[in-house]
Amino acid sequence: MSASYTLGLDYGTNSVRALIVNTANGQEVGTAVWNYAHGTAGVLLSRDPNLARQHPADYVEGAEVAVKKALADARKRRRGFRPDQVVGIGVDTTGSTPLPVDAQGKPLAFQKRFAKNPAAMAWLWKDHTGVAEAAEITARAAELRPHYLAKCGGTYSSEWFFSKILHCLRTSPEVFEAAHTWVECADWIPAMLTGTEAPDQLTVGVCAAGHKAMYNDAWGGYPDAEFLGRLDPKLGELRGRLRPQAHTVERSVGGLTSAWARRTGLPAGIPVAVGAFDAHLGGVGSGIAPGTLVKIIGTSTCDMMVAPVGKPLADIPGLCGIVNGSILPGYFGLEAGQSAVGDIFNWWVNYVQPGGPKAGSHEALTAGAARLKPGESGLLALDWNNGNRTILVDQRLTGLLLGQTLYTTPAEIYRTLIEATAFGALTIINRFEEYGVKVDQVVNCGGIAEKSPLVMQIYADVTGRPMQISRSAQTCALGAAIAGAVVAGVHPDFAAAQRAMTGLKPRGFKPNPQAHAVYRELYGLYRKLHDAFGTREWSGNLHDVMKALIDLRQRVRQ
Amino acid sequence: MSASYTLGLDYGTNSVRALIVNTANGQEVGTAVWNYAHGTAGVLLSRDPNLARQHPADYVEGAEVAVKKALADARKRRRGFRPDQVVGIGVDTTGSTPLPVDAQGKPLAFQKRFAKNPAAMAWLWKDHTGVAEAAEITARAAELRPHYLAKCGGTYSSEWFFSKILHCLRTSPEVFEAAHTWVECADWIPAMLTGTEAPDQLTVGVCAAGHKAMYNDAWGGYPDAEFLGRLDPKLGELRGRLRPQAHTVERSVGGLTSAWARRTGLPAGIPVAVGAFDAHLGGVGSGIAPGTLVKIIGTSTCDMMVAPVGKPLADIPGLCGIVNGSILPGYFGLEAGQSAVGDIFNWWVNYVQPGGPKAGSHEALTAGAARLKPGESGLLALDWNNGNRTILVDQRLTGLLLGQTLYTTPAEIYRTLIEATAFGALTIINRFEEYGVKVDQVVNCGGIAEKSPLVMQIYADVTGRPMQISRSAQTCALGAAIAGAVVAGVHPDFAAAQRAMTGLKPRGFKPNPQAHAVYRELYGLYRKLHDAFGTREWSGNLHDVMKALIDLRQRVRQ
Repeated sequence: MSASYTLGLDYGTNSVRALIVNTANGQEVGTAVWNYAHGTAGVLLSRDPNLARQHPADYVEGAEVAVKKALADARKRRRGFRPDQVVGIGVDTTGSTPLPVDAQGKPLAFQKRFAKNPAAMAWLWKDHTGVAEAAEITARAAELRPHYLAKCGGTYSSEWFFSKILHCLRTSPEVFEAAHTWVECADWIPAMLTGTEAPDQLTVGVCAAGHKAMYNDAWGGYPDAEFLGRLDPKLGELRGRLRPQAHTVERSVGGLTSAWARRTGLPAGIPVAVGAFDAHLGGVGSGIAPGTLVKIIGTSTCDMMVAPVGKPLADIPGLCGIVNGSILPGYFGLEAGQSAVGDIFNWWVNYVQPGGPKAGSHEALTAGAARLKPGESGLLALDWNNGNRTILVDQRLTGLLLGQTLYTTPAEIYRTLIEATAFGALTIINRFEEYGVKVDQVVNCGGIAEKSPLVMQIYADVTGRPMQISRSAQTCALGAAIAGAVVAGVHPDFAAAQRAMTGLKPRGFKPNPQAHAVYRELYGLYRKLHDAFGTREWSGNLHDVMKALIDLRQRVRQ
Repeated sequence: MSASYTLGLDYGTNSVRALIVNTANGQEVGTAVWNYAHGTAGVLLSRDPNLARQHPADYVEGAEVAVKKALADARKRRRGFRPDQVVGIGVDTTGSTPLPVDAQGKPLAFQKRFAKNPAAMAWLWKDHTGVAEAAEITARAAELRPHYLAKCGGTYSSEWFFSKILHCLRTSPEVFEAAHTWVECADWIPAMLTGTEAPDQLTVGVCAAGHKAMYNDAWGGYPDAEFLGRLDPKLGELRGRLRPQAHTVERSVGGLTSAWARRTGLPAGIPVAVGAFDAHLGGVGSGIAPGTLVKIIGTSTCDMMVAPVGKPLADIPGLCGIVNGSILPGYFGLEAGQSAVGDIFNWWVNYVQPGGPKAGSHEALTAGAARLKPGESGLLALDWNNGNRTILVDQRLTGLLLGQTLYTTPAEIYRTLIEATAFGALTIINRFEEYGVKVDQVVNCGGIAEKSPLVMQIYADVTGRPMQISRSAQTCALGAAIAGAVVAGVHPDFAAAQRAMTGLKPRGFKPNPQAHAVYRELYGLYRKLHDAFGTREWSGNLHDVMKALIDLRQRVRQ
């Protein structure tokens, strides 16, 4: 039997990647990246720092250019590769990134009258213009539908679906009125590729709907019209134009159209899987399974787990979302995360730039930090420079650094910032386990996991657990390709597809028991600060914190 | 009547300064600085970072060289100036800087067998080798003589007289045994100039004895022999070889010897005042009087006040010292201070060096910080990088920075560090006033007060009080010269001498009411952190701190 391949299409913030993967062994035979043409690095900005939009034309052009280039790359690198060996497609995107569409499912942005209207564009995940609306939705849900909030960490975010739509309704009514409905980017791209954009044909994924739009089969899908109508009668009316049912990535939304086959060189009719978010398919591409925590570590993190449907599962307070089927069919997808990880290190390097551009590079600071022993600096930090997504779910938190003397060095602070993010990671692991979701294995992926052995070793030492690294450097696109392989019937299910197509790097990071013992002490102090500054419940005194750090520093230096 | 002049000799950590001052108007007509010849910038160091000593030979050579040069300078700058117009001498030094002497009052360091023994040198104020002994003295005094501690902030410091002597006894018994007694540098130099070093002729000053050696007329002078004997019998025996009575700076210890007159060119027989510490005579040189707080702002600060003897005065908790006559005769000298001010700014500039040497200079950061509005950064810091001297009296505290985001800049942090020291300054002012010592005027002196209008403006805005700057840039040496003028009988008392010889710069700094209103809010948050991390009594929750800073930032930016 000849080899078969599937295509993963990974729509990021600044670019789209196409990846062609051998379904038998996960080998990545061709890839290409296309940078979006519109805006600043693909993002439409304005004077309002909260505004971040994308032009959907980039989604269309990106699919064509990236796929063609990836096919060419595969032909060049893999002797005998033929585009007709591609048997299925999967798509992942950022989210919540909803866009307003007309009665045919075409983006309003494509209409001349809206061509320059930011409200008619795709509202990118990091658009925070709906802060007030998010607070309003949270307050109204707490009052009327508290069970809606229980599955999304207790707070409805300004980054999410209804906050954005309600903000559009309030501030750009002409766009809201012109829109027949709103579609997540993750749903619109598979629909575009298969010609199923028409609102009555559209297939929506449970990943976006469940994590960002309070969709749940238990209460009949999206939030009910009465509740939405209490926010605004027009939002209540919109409810009738949202799809009644959302689906997992094991379902095909349709076959690739002949038009798209001609544009790209792919075979017509090959199935396209239901779309999902990048982090969730990244979990799939990292081999997620019950007991495996997948950490996608970049500027921020997503921490993903799955728990079998049918077994009891508590609402886990402080988790961003618990959604049936959002990662793997038959499992609850559990999504946690840290609002900033690499971004905190980048802040120190790019904004503070200690010692100047050379002395203050990531490489130089990493080298200095690696020479330090745990506890040696006497420093402790909180990893909240961009708020806290899990377990406090509070954007209105900020960074904290403590223990500095007259001799504290930039490398000591750099290491302390790494340690702070590791303590944040441990807090998430603990929260999973406190609520019965056991973490047997941690698999890391993303730029920092790939590039920084120091970060990975500190994570192992802080958590007391081995850190594994995903074999693929493109786990999101790989996960999408795995979905393509499942909908194409190459593998009977995701477990089989993951066994064949995913793996770990040979080098993992084992915890050092001595370092772990020191970090247990430091984590106790971190947790004290975490609770004192982050919760209303904590009450006490922090008189011992600085003294404990000094004692530890003295013990470690001896 | 021809003009008369007095000489101020100011012995610092790295150098000695001689200053010749017109007694009629305070004009400084000649000055010279001599850098000590021994050690690193005048300080003898070792592998033990706590050790800091000085060679007393530098005190002798320094007097000769600096005085001769200052006289030459005066002759050059002031037409008609004659050395025989110098009518008196005052001396200030660092402290507690005790040195062991033999039965003739000669430093053991001058004996061949001790020439290289660090224990035989002068134990510089910042020598911390006696940490364990300080803790022992504090514990023993708390148990047996709690009233001793009430006048020195509740804790006997490792920087002070008996900690150093007891450490010498324990670790260099050969030096302790060879020493007849121990003399403060501030006492030894006037004795040297007047030939009164012999232990039975030695005049000791109440400034050093009272602030650093628990001397108090109320309990018969130095701590009693029984108490000292409980620390070590040999320390109890030493008590008999300490002087029974200490004196204020209005007393002359004797006339300049003919030998010293020949060495320097000064007239023989002119009176030399009792010595005192630099900060205390700096207070005199800044015009200290009841109601006037003098802040000497350098790497750390001394905050000095006086309160009339005879009126009720509480023991003010958390003050370094309350000593009758230590600054002005007839007044209690009250000494408070911050363990680090300029040193914190220097840490940020020299150790973190944000943006490199150029972008991260004091000048560049000051320019950036000056462009910011109070509250605009959302940051808050504690000024404890070197512990807290007043009001917590706790070396085992460290720095804290809070509120940083992913966009926080070095200039924002620099300004926040300045603000933190201003909050520390306000805490001291409040403590004085809480205990009935009213602060009507604040006079600043020292390098930072001279050089940084931004720091002075922030201090005015934070405290809500005008900041004045002392006219002289050499207030310590000027204060010593004033003491010389009083012992010479040129002025009848210190008040008259200060009226004639001190003044303020024309430019002061007035508080901006809007800035002060913002800083009142910030100080509330500072005080919450101060109490939460610095005291055992505080109990509560810090959940509102980061949110209040974000709210303030948003209000200020609007």
